[in-house]
Amino acid sequence: MSYHRPDAGLLQNLKDIANKLRIHSINATDASNSGHPSSCMSMAEVMSVLFFNTMRYSVEQPRSPSNDRFILSKGHAAPILYAAWAEAGLFPTEDLLKLRKIDSDLEGHPTPRLNFVDVATGSLGQGLSVAVGMGYTGKYIDKADYRVYCVIGDGESAEGSIWEAMAFASHYHLDNVVAIFDVNRLGQSEPTSLQHQLDVYKARAESFGWNTYIVDGHSVDDLCKAFHDASTVKGKPTCIVAKTYKGRGGPEVEDKENWHGKPLGAQSQASREAISQQIKNKGPHKIQISQPTPVPDVDITNIQLSSPPVYEKGAKVATRQAYGKALVKIGENNSRVVAMDGDTKNSTFAIEFKKAFPDRFIECYIAEQNLVGVGIGCGCRNRTVPFISTFACFLTRAFDQIRMGAISQTNANFVGSHCGVSIGEDGPSQMALEDIAMFRSIPGSTVFYPSDAVSCERAIELAANQKGICFVRTSRPATSMLYDETTKLQIGKAQVVRQSDKDSVTVIGCCVTLHEALKAADKLAIDGINIRVIDPFTIKPLDTETIIASARATGGRVITVEDHYAWGGLGDAVCGELGPYKEFSVYKMAVTEIPRSGPSAVLLEKFGISANCIVNKVREILA
Amino acid sequence: MSYHRPDAGLLQNLKDIANKLRIHSINATDASNSGHPSSCMSMAEVMSVLFFNTMRYSVEQPRSPSNDRFILSKGHAAPILYAAWAEAGLFPTEDLLKLRKIDSDLEGHPTPRLNFVDVATGSLGQGLSVAVGMGYTGKYIDKADYRVYCVIGDGESAEGSIWEAMAFASHYHLDNVVAIFDVNRLGQSEPTSLQHQLDVYKARAESFGWNTYIVDGHSVDDLCKAFHDASTVKGKPTCIVAKTYKGRGGPEVEDKENWHGKPLGAQSQASREAISQQIKNKGPHKIQISQPTPVPDVDITNIQLSSPPVYEKGAKVATRQAYGKALVKIGENNSRVVAMDGDTKNSTFAIEFKKAFPDRFIECYIAEQNLVGVGIGCGCRNRTVPFISTFACFLTRAFDQIRMGAISQTNANFVGSHCGVSIGEDGPSQMALEDIAMFRSIPGSTVFYPSDAVSCERAIELAANQKGICFVRTSRPATSMLYDETTKLQIGKAQVVRQSDKDSVTVIGCCVTLHEALKAADKLAIDGINIRVIDPFTIKPLDTETIIASARATGGRVITVEDHYAWGGLGDAVCGELGPYKEFSVYKMAVTEIPRSGPSAVLLEKFGISANCIVNKVREILA
Repeated sequence: MSYHRPDAGLLQNLKDIANKLRIHSINATDASNSGHPSSCMSMAEVMSVLFFNTMRYSVEQPRSPSNDRFILSKGHAAPILYAAWAEAGLFPTEDLLKLRKIDSDLEGHPTPRLNFVDVATGSLGQGLSVAVGMGYTGKYIDKADYRVYCVIGDGESAEGSIWEAMAFASHYHLDNVVAIFDVNRLGQSEPTSLQHQLDVYKARAESFGWNTYIVDGHSVDDLCKAFHDASTVKGKPTCIVAKTYKGRGGPEVEDKENWHGKPLGAQSQASREAISQQIKNKGPHKIQISQPTPVPDVDITNIQLSSPPVYEKGAKVATRQAYGKALVKIGENNSRVVAMDGDTKNSTFAIEFKKAFPDRFIECYIAEQNLVGVGIGCGCRNRTVPFISTFACFLTRAFDQIRMGAISQTNANFVGSHCGVSIGEDGPSQMALEDIAMFRSIPGSTVFYPSDAVSCERAIELAANQKGICFVRTSRPATSMLYDETTKLQIGKAQVVRQSDKDSVTVIGCCVTLHEALKAADKLAIDGINIRVIDPFTIKPLDTETIIASARATGGRVITVEDHYAWGGLGDAVCGELGPYKEFSVYKMAVTEIPRSGPSAVLLEKFGISANCIVNKVREILA
Repeated sequence: MSYHRPDAGLLQNLKDIANKLRIHSINATDASNSGHPSSCMSMAEVMSVLFFNTMRYSVEQPRSPSNDRFILSKGHAAPILYAAWAEAGLFPTEDLLKLRKIDSDLEGHPTPRLNFVDVATGSLGQGLSVAVGMGYTGKYIDKADYRVYCVIGDGESAEGSIWEAMAFASHYHLDNVVAIFDVNRLGQSEPTSLQHQLDVYKARAESFGWNTYIVDGHSVDDLCKAFHDASTVKGKPTCIVAKTYKGRGGPEVEDKENWHGKPLGAQSQASREAISQQIKNKGPHKIQISQPTPVPDVDITNIQLSSPPVYEKGAKVATRQAYGKALVKIGENNSRVVAMDGDTKNSTFAIEFKKAFPDRFIECYIAEQNLVGVGIGCGCRNRTVPFISTFACFLTRAFDQIRMGAISQTNANFVGSHCGVSIGEDGPSQMALEDIAMFRSIPGSTVFYPSDAVSCERAIELAANQKGICFVRTSRPATSMLYDETTKLQIGKAQVVRQSDKDSVTVIGCCVTLHEALKAADKLAIDGINIRVIDPFTIKPLDTETIIASARATGGRVITVEDHYAWGGLGDAVCGELGPYKEFSVYKMAVTEIPRSGPSAVLLEKFGISANCIVNKVREILA
């Protein structure tokens, strides 16, 4: 389609709106006596053109699946995002003065507490990964025509996660994604490393496969054309490198250092006046916002395994392998289940899903931050149920994205394989030993640690329906079956896998260490010592009731055994829950030093979590 | 200096050594029945040329500060690194057959248990950040002529951290750094996204400011020239894009899929034979390895504050501010203290160090993964004492680098500011609430949480001398002095800041919550309820002795209060330590949901960690 330049009246309206957004940002940050007005002022024209000329959306239903998406990666510019929606008519502009107040959802940085925000931003460099996840979903899953716009600060473009997302978007030909680099030259504490070298930004974006334009970011005319041209490009995402000035419009503020993250204070009045003088039409501007093409709702509720987990009684199967089976089964049950991996799919067994549903598997290559961001993006507006897998230790690469995911109210599911020293010869760099601590620390998270293939399949089924961040920890070694398809497994419900009426100690283990505990029980039984063995199934939430009942039945003696470091994992979780009670003694067995390469069984022994170690610990505390 | 092409004899020797390295890699992985031979085979010529023609080093003293540095970022190719050192004469080549055995330090991935390895690799994409940290140290701190070589796999070049390091190296003109991209086309589970598009790699490297050559990675002739040319370039780092083939030399293995991470097995014999046929001279090759220019040793022991921490009795000072002061003081005491930050130096107060010692401050811009890698690189071979600062929540961005740092036996010091809800209006994205859980999970780590400016200065002094990873958690609000310059503060030693002979509860808090506990003590005292208040100073190690003594003196009742999430922090640490004891009840007070923007004091109250909340908790457990 050919480009029709907006008439002079509309262009003037867009200029006027941009300046009104500037004034709103100054006023809001003055009112809260904090915030980032200068970061808002550089992107005012970008916002007015996007929200009042380019984007197609329903003001009344900001989260409609049909709408074009907008992500403010530079979340500290929140005031101008809020101002744009207020000017569009979603809420009264007077509300902008409640910025950062305890009784307002107009927080310092955007969160989904606001119905026009999909994901929380404010930890820099994360927005584009979410945007490309949305773009992938739009193009390949929804097959819809909604477009995704993401504004990135020049300072945050130093984050590697931006370049992971840039590579992903061009590899998958996401021509529905537009990234706007707001190149305002100044960072927080000094100028950015590239300042106004727009040609360098352009060369980098082009080398990463993006159709790229350099524009005057303060020209609504240039911006209208650039966004139109972007919509005509096929097979490539578009990057708009916008030359802007931080604090634009404030006589003593524009392009000056030391104005980051503070209200204009003494410069407010002069800045307001200078900007007001530019405004010809104070509105109403009577701009008709284009409506989007309707996109149907989808149902992602009540997801089930297409067939129950059936294994031969004596079979030994690794939980990571059961993950592959379960993922295919829920994929058969619901067409909105999607999976992604970071070039480890043949180790995590996500490859089974790719074989069954190639159109719903997303290879994200070795870029875990983007892998997680893409997963979160795919899950936005409940369009899909994402399962994100790699070695559990490599999920630490994306802790900041996971932390922000919780603030974003995401329902992303994480499956981490190769946990613990039990992986053996590959050595410590490949062993996840802090992953439980990481996922436990996240509010609202659910941490599954299945001990056999049956419970792993159930964990995946439960995770698919559970809100918040779910983590399923899978193991490399094959473990024998503990349960069958009739076993009722629930979040927060432990299984007592071994008990008698004369148990003297309760031992809590998971997967490899649970099976070691069972071996220990057999050895101890020979000497007439009985222990009760518990599988918590979920470490968060923990089935405190069952643990307390067992502990009471075993003289208050509890041992936790985990293939994880001694800090923040199962042991701490149990100690934390039993903390208020005087009647219990809890002894932690865990890995306390950096492990090394060697055979799995040897490492369990060497690092103190084998059956023999449990036997010795039981004898010690009973002595 | 002009290039002298090695004579035909030397070139043939380099070819022969390359093929011997291939055979060693095949044999070692066969012997351990695991490992990544095909990933070694693609880079054999790169290794033979670097180790036997280009690099200047002492075989007898692999960790000499004078040597050129080598980092194998693609750590899974460990066997060929081990083979190169064996061929150079450091240890018998027979030892290579002990690969991945429990009694050998030739682990699956390299760790500094080996005296020729500076940092552990194996979590991909991290090597270049460490390399540029070493390069920065060589050029600007040591002012020495040693050079740094880093081999990067094409698969791992998708990691954003690589591009953070690329931007850093060109910004700081690190012409002593050479990155070799081993473009062997194949990843773990499928071909890489760029396969053999060498021009794309070149365009990306050039757009990031690197002098770049495309070479035939299997031509020792091309490699000798490229490494020589790199050494003549001024002001720019050099990137060598090497076109290679995975499994090079194995008739049925070369450039074939599904050979990642497995011994050649049935293909071993045929591969060995085909490769052996290429070898003209089985050695000894009598190659003289060039010796490096001597670099003097430095002393980084017994670092002290240049003057004691003196503050007025009534003064209120934020611990983050005390960090700036302390950093300058230890910088005055030892010229090897260096500091780096991610464009937050005016918030973390690292800016004070930059003002005092501009030559020893490294601005890393908004790229936390590289920030951490650079710090670890600066600390290698004990050349400097690095202090790495940003908002504590953004250190989660580098959890994988920190995890690997522990395996690397690094002595890096981390200082994270703006912890907890007490930062106020900026909102949850800027609040560190899982940072203690993260740093506690690391083996050998020391976690400081100072409660006033005096103890913060001491924490920095202690951290500078403490081995392993240190984390100092600093706060935004100003807090009043608890100690003076005479107070003896030690790692693992708590301070009892309030006590009487009739205390009924022990309350443990840190910084903001410790001061809330003191307020609570005053309120409760009015009703004749006395509480004992403890400042742990370090959360890891925890002063269990003092806590137990206090708990015993207060009826076994203990409350922990922390401005951190309820999982993995202070509360879990105390519960874990007291777990085995039946005589105590420990109650955790912490943040249990995603917080929001608002005034600091209001948030402490709303999220359950204010003085009032403590008062109520004490009354509740005494009721």
